[in-house]
Amino acid sequence: MTPMRKRTHTVMTTVIVATLLAVAIAARTRQDASISFPDSYRTWAHVKSVVVGPTSAAFATEGGIHHIYANPSAVDGYRTGKFPDGAIIVYDLLETKEAAGNLLEGAPRRLDVMIKDRRRFAANEGWGFASFKGGERTGGDLSPERQRKCLDCHAKRRDHDYVQSAFRD
Amino acid sequence: MTPMRKRTHTVMTTVIVATLLAVAIAARTRQDASISFPDSYRTWAHVKSVVVGPTSAAFATEGGIHHIYANPSAVDGYRTGKFPDGAIIVYDLLETKEAAGNLLEGAPRRLDVMIKDRRRFAANEGWGFASFKGGERTGGDLSPERQRKCLDCHAKRRDHDYVQSAFRD
Repeated sequence: MTPMRKRTHTVMTTVIVATLLAVAIAARTRQDASISFPDSYRTWAHVKSVVVGPTSAAFATEGGIHHIYANPSAVDGYRTGKFPDGAIIVYDLLETKEAAGNLLEGAPRRLDVMIKDRRRFAANEGWGFASFKGGERTGGDLSPERQRKCLDCHAKRRDHDYVQSAFRD
Repeated sequence: MTPMRKRTHTVMTTVIVATLLAVAIAARTRQDASISFPDSYRTWAHVKSVVVGPTSAAFATEGGIHHIYANPSAVDGYRTGKFPDGAIIVYDLLETKEAAGNLLEGAPRRLDVMIKDRRRFAANEGWGFASFKGGERTGGDLSPERQRKCLDCHAKRRDHDYVQSAFRD
């Protein structure tokens, strides 16, 4: 190998290694920030429910009945006001249907998740947010900007560790 | 002791022993059939919810929002259609209040319990029933006749082990 070829080879090797490293770090970061569907949430504690009716200002996006669920770590958080890492809260929004004067639960409309992990979501006060379309169990990840918007709205309850709801006793 | 006194003594002893036995058996039976308030039900799985409105035929007694909760054994029952001993289901009826177009949970109205125990409630197809007035945690016991009436109404779901509700997935 000539000195010229040797330098070219070294440069190429460096570029390849650097590229592979960058790809690996990006993949790790993506995986690290991804929030999977909380498969077991239907056996978690039920925090509270609200029916958002047609005259509510929030009807367009939140109309229906929503239930809030908390995993055991989040139940501790509701009791102490500080949510430990691993706490997960689900906002489960369903359509409603009327039958003989009763309002029944209908099709799933949207399922939002907030999860506490001070390392993974350090840039967002420790809270990661995801949002799954009605009935879907994948594709819930939100961009950092969208997650920041979630947090901004939750910031009115900064005194309650950014969790808006209270556990109905 | 004369023979007369001896006989009297024997009769008295027998009466006392029999009375004590009867009292003990009655107490045991009462205790055995008593259903205590399910203290931990707010962390159990949430089966489903219904809002019973003013135009519903059931409004007088069931008006409001009710949530149904199941302990882990009852969750198994919902999945298999057969409820094991120890399964407990709670029907939690709350008043509702309106605020800015939203229907919120209000004060507790009544809390009904059904519990599966094929030995204790053998006379009632294995199901014991209790009903606690709004916010009260004692005084939920019902007479055998009242419990039979509960079961009679639940009998329309005999194919589902007398449980009327289905677990919302």
